[in-house]
Amino acid sequence: MSKYWSDFVTQLEPYTPGEQPRTTNIVKLNTNENPYGPSPGAIAAIDAALNQDLRLYPPSGADGLKQAIAKYYNLNSDQIFVGNGSDEVLAHVFNGLLKQPAPLLFPDITYSFYTVFCRLYGIDYSVIPLSDDLCIDVADYKQLNGGIIFPNPNAPTGRLLDTDSIEQLLKANQDSVIVIDEAYIDFGGQSAVPLIDHYPNLLVVQTMSKSRSLAGMRIGYAIGSVDLIEGLERVKNSFNSYPLGHLQIAAGIAAFEDKDYFDKTCDRIIKDREELSKDLKQLGFTVLPSAANFVFVHHAQHSAEAIAAYLRELGIIVRHFKQPRIKSFLRITVGTESQNQELLSAVGDFLK
Amino acid sequence: MSKYWSDFVTQLEPYTPGEQPRTTNIVKLNTNENPYGPSPGAIAAIDAALNQDLRLYPPSGADGLKQAIAKYYNLNSDQIFVGNGSDEVLAHVFNGLLKQPAPLLFPDITYSFYTVFCRLYGIDYSVIPLSDDLCIDVADYKQLNGGIIFPNPNAPTGRLLDTDSIEQLLKANQDSVIVIDEAYIDFGGQSAVPLIDHYPNLLVVQTMSKSRSLAGMRIGYAIGSVDLIEGLERVKNSFNSYPLGHLQIAAGIAAFEDKDYFDKTCDRIIKDREELSKDLKQLGFTVLPSAANFVFVHHAQHSAEAIAAYLRELGIIVRHFKQPRIKSFLRITVGTESQNQELLSAVGDFLK
Repeated sequence: MSKYWSDFVTQLEPYTPGEQPRTTNIVKLNTNENPYGPSPGAIAAIDAALNQDLRLYPPSGADGLKQAIAKYYNLNSDQIFVGNGSDEVLAHVFNGLLKQPAPLLFPDITYSFYTVFCRLYGIDYSVIPLSDDLCIDVADYKQLNGGIIFPNPNAPTGRLLDTDSIEQLLKANQDSVIVIDEAYIDFGGQSAVPLIDHYPNLLVVQTMSKSRSLAGMRIGYAIGSVDLIEGLERVKNSFNSYPLGHLQIAAGIAAFEDKDYFDKTCDRIIKDREELSKDLKQLGFTVLPSAANFVFVHHAQHSAEAIAAYLRELGIIVRHFKQPRIKSFLRITVGTESQNQELLSAVGDFLK
Repeated sequence: MSKYWSDFVTQLEPYTPGEQPRTTNIVKLNTNENPYGPSPGAIAAIDAALNQDLRLYPPSGADGLKQAIAKYYNLNSDQIFVGNGSDEVLAHVFNGLLKQPAPLLFPDITYSFYTVFCRLYGIDYSVIPLSDDLCIDVADYKQLNGGIIFPNPNAPTGRLLDTDSIEQLLKANQDSVIVIDEAYIDFGGQSAVPLIDHYPNLLVVQTMSKSRSLAGMRIGYAIGSVDLIEGLERVKNSFNSYPLGHLQIAAGIAAFEDKDYFDKTCDRIIKDREELSKDLKQLGFTVLPSAANFVFVHHAQHSAEAIAAYLRELGIIVRHFKQPRIKSFLRITVGTESQNQELLSAVGDFLK
């Protein structure tokens, strides 16, 4: 506390990001990064932009990147909003679209930044419990609301909601904005983006940090009707004119243009996730069906905390959330084949 | 307007950044960029960080960059806050420190983003008119306030306030935060940073976009007491965990370490500003004394708008603000020697 802080600052409970250890000698399966590097095209594009022009401000609208995303999804640039990672995009979404008289709805088990944003912006919210098998049931969202948001697939469960259910929500809530946070959609889910042209209340948020291997570059975006995007632009242009620099814009464009590399790495991760899931089941774990680049697992005989601590001793880091309903679970990022084998072997030793 | 926007969005009047034309064949003297490129060390540092690790999240605290800035100013890392350009830093400052029951004070002629931030965060403010010769007079700030902010040197005037006056303000307002926005301080002003250890209510904001030639990388920072910095960290960590990527952190560290290049380019710009000022005076302009990398000038016989329009036809872009009290002025960035000569020659032709 300090007399110099604005009143609300004392009430904030900031988000705790997953650990980013500095040592290189670890198997890092805790923050859902892509085990493969960025597209060689993205690296080359950054290299090409690495010149004296870095002295100049970037284009405020990051137009080239918006065009590349629009082209990829067969939309127009004015249906695209870009920002400094999907967290910044989400922050502007919460402030600019989801601050409403009626409460915002989201699941009890979900991305924990949502409650942080609500506290930052003074947004009223209600959490809707997931079903017993940790699924989102859209029937539970039939109540007065000022918006609905959830990740699809959900985090940290990895469970996917089908597009029909999303369409039901959109139809039933035509006066509210429905935000689908698709950070992990490229690992086997069906994106809600094709619904954009039919539902002016749909906003889809995506990131280049996971499926496009650019977590270290900070690029996120939102896709929606011109109306929703204009609202976000107004907030963004009242906050920071230039959230993306030249190198981010160049990398983002190139990553979207290199569809082959994207398809190849996503396919590989999906295949390895299925292998990993099967092997963990054989070791006695319950593994939730995942459409993400991680698996959410628990073991009836062993505490998640004990397993995580054992793995950490061996330099393998996974994520454990000390939270009701999921404290017996571990979230494990799908790594390279050899990282997955190392994990399985260590877990096998623990269980012996 | 849209029914999907949060209420306040309709009231926003977003900031209008200076134009960033795409053509390369222009003399761009409108947004106070450095005419020289970034330090070769910064370019090399980005190149060295351009690898597969871009798949990983950056360190959330950008610790290496904080350490480099702290070392440069002989302070501790916990006195440094970093962000995505000084606009993002300022946004968090307005929200986290300057949202108070009493009104925030700033000059009537100043960085126009300040009123935009106030509108974004619902901050009450009073503008204090500059003196007739467009100076800040600290005596005018003797009134109840919830904070004071101004650039030093001020923008777009370029006029510098001396450190004694700043110290008077700090002493007279010990319950308010005093923010000195030093975007242009390295071009001949004396920074208020040495006062940090004496005044817990002082926050200094700086940018790497001007004197360090990294506008295209988006790096800003604030320096102040541990208390003030902690307040900013709480807001930042409730907004976006990772505002700076690997390449930004690498570039920022290297730019701070290359003091020779920094000194050489700043000295050059200062020298060229004095030349440019002298030559413009010879052409009949009134030139305000500038401690920045731009000059603020007007001509008794010719409208600023007409001069700017004439220059634009020739591919020379300067900035004109359509604002009471300064609409007869032009703000001209100090360019390279040859750019300055081109400007002078064109202005000379106009006046013939």
